[in-house]
Amino acid sequence: MAYQLDAAKLTIWLTAQFKSIGLNDQSTRHVVESMVSTSLRGVDSHGINLFPHYHRAIQSERIKRNPNMQFHQTAASTGTVDADHAIGHHAGAFAMERAIALARESGMSAVGVKDSTHFGAAAYFGLMAAKQDMIGFSFTNADALVKAHGAKEAFFGTNPICFCAPLDKEEPFCLDMATSTVSWNKIINLRRENGRAPEGWAYDAEGNVTTDPNVARSLSPVGGYKGYGLGMMVDVLCSLLVGGLIGKDMLPMYTSPITARRRISHFFMVLNIEKFIAPEAFKKNLQQMVDRLRSLAPLDPDVPVMVAGDPEKRMERHRLTTGIPMDESKFGEYAQIDDGIRDCLVR
Amino acid sequence: MAYQLDAAKLTIWLTAQFKSIGLNDQSTRHVVESMVSTSLRGVDSHGINLFPHYHRAIQSERIKRNPNMQFHQTAASTGTVDADHAIGHHAGAFAMERAIALARESGMSAVGVKDSTHFGAAAYFGLMAAKQDMIGFSFTNADALVKAHGAKEAFFGTNPICFCAPLDKEEPFCLDMATSTVSWNKIINLRRENGRAPEGWAYDAEGNVTTDPNVARSLSPVGGYKGYGLGMMVDVLCSLLVGGLIGKDMLPMYTSPITARRRISHFFMVLNIEKFIAPEAFKKNLQQMVDRLRSLAPLDPDVPVMVAGDPEKRMERHRLTTGIPMDESKFGEYAQIDDGIRDCLVR
Repeated sequence: MAYQLDAAKLTIWLTAQFKSIGLNDQSTRHVVESMVSTSLRGVDSHGINLFPHYHRAIQSERIKRNPNMQFHQTAASTGTVDADHAIGHHAGAFAMERAIALARESGMSAVGVKDSTHFGAAAYFGLMAAKQDMIGFSFTNADALVKAHGAKEAFFGTNPICFCAPLDKEEPFCLDMATSTVSWNKIINLRRENGRAPEGWAYDAEGNVTTDPNVARSLSPVGGYKGYGLGMMVDVLCSLLVGGLIGKDMLPMYTSPITARRRISHFFMVLNIEKFIAPEAFKKNLQQMVDRLRSLAPLDPDVPVMVAGDPEKRMERHRLTTGIPMDESKFGEYAQIDDGIRDCLVR
Repeated sequence: MAYQLDAAKLTIWLTAQFKSIGLNDQSTRHVVESMVSTSLRGVDSHGINLFPHYHRAIQSERIKRNPNMQFHQTAASTGTVDADHAIGHHAGAFAMERAIALARESGMSAVGVKDSTHFGAAAYFGLMAAKQDMIGFSFTNADALVKAHGAKEAFFGTNPICFCAPLDKEEPFCLDMATSTVSWNKIINLRRENGRAPEGWAYDAEGNVTTDPNVARSLSPVGGYKGYGLGMMVDVLCSLLVGGLIGKDMLPMYTSPITARRRISHFFMVLNIEKFIAPEAFKKNLQQMVDRLRSLAPLDPDVPVMVAGDPEKRMERHRLTTGIPMDESKFGEYAQIDDGIRDCLVR
């Protein structure tokens, strides 16, 4: 049975939880805003379900409560952030705010982030730029989970690519995709449910295709060698420009000691639309593109054509009313931390 | 039977051919350099095989011999190029040179190009940046050939993503990939050879999977909805920032009147590595990443693990010795334009 949680009440409750273990205000604001908005959008793998994990990681000092985060501007349109093991949502938001400020003047900007932690959904940062009438890109590297094409083992992480751009009449266009075919969470869920993975999702320790989630050790890159190349691009941008760890050398999120620092790297780019074309014209034209796509004759008469981000927009409208669902075992983890979570249930 | 052409002789011959029909010096230099280097790298779909097409397109004024190409800098790191229907290789090189110059100072740059023509291989431009110790991105839109996910018909082109970065001990790392599973050329070749397409490459006019190349009307986006999203990202960057045509509204390359202007848009971004980290350190670290990938245990003991661009590097070494192969019918087209092509054959 699934519980349904009210987003506004949950925001207040989560904020109190993080503050009670000493996470500073800025970190708390960004991680809570990102987790709740991500869950509202239906991306359950990167939303509030991660709260118990972050809660442990803060208490064990993997994530610093009061990081000494520094921005170093290196040119008119570039800079780096030393995140000092801040919670990734805060490190990313801090970097994206600076990238937006740089692009406001210079037109295009890029900011790399080193020594960070898990940053949640990449969309949170891309959308920050889009809401300022700019185009936002966000990337992060992650520990090795995606099989290198032609190899037996994983080398890069699920290294997402996120691209957001503003629309005229609705929330921004948002593409946020792992460079693997599916997320590792899907494999973990199949293990719990005693399910089988469709062929082509995962490989065993020898690099052979497997449908058994219990022997799965790596994921397939999306589109084979193309996704492998895109995953490498993301790691080059994230880790090599700031001298950070590459996916293969990074500790895994769950199975490494919770005290160990992971040193994740992120990368953000912002394009200031007004340096190319009037933002109103851009937004009208992108809206028209989106509307034309949605009005194409669908292959399945019951499934209209969508663009990236459409399922998340629908889900957000739905969950703002019905609440964010949570399964019983996850709710139990929450309640163990603070039983007050029961007051966040949708009446 | 395949003919083998010497790259150096071919360069001289092609240069003379373009000059004899009045293409200006800069256009000629870029299109010839791009075509020959692309064919040496084994990318036959975008190399010298296109010469007869370009030759016709110049004579018919689709491609202008003496375009009035203009660069407008709009901020410290951004600008646009009005290509005035120049040959795309020249428009792209002109734009990439300016993007490199902007990034040298500002750290990151972006240049959009409107009213251009087919620009050949995206790698040609990305490699220009990498050879200057910078990271280069290049993108182009194209006429609708890739089926929109969930729709019956094509909306975006094969819209490539190209990412190049310098290595320590060899030519740059180069990822240059269409956002479709395969190129349209593969379908055209299957028609010629009376072959069948593997399931998953192409769709018929109703959007159903087909293996018959003769009824194929659209290609699959790589990785389904992810490739569809990436193709859309490329068209947004290319067309919407410069107010150009989107894929769906663009005339096809071969089947539209050769006199008609196509108004293709490109987009280039450059990251100046030295604004982040010493280029020597970056190149050593990327070389190490590449070397580690290549030394992973291969799935097939006879096929070593490669990174994007490795097949092209091998092919270039091979073809510099053996020559660039050309099939009989294409050679016939060449010979009809100028029989002197026979002097370019490898002895």
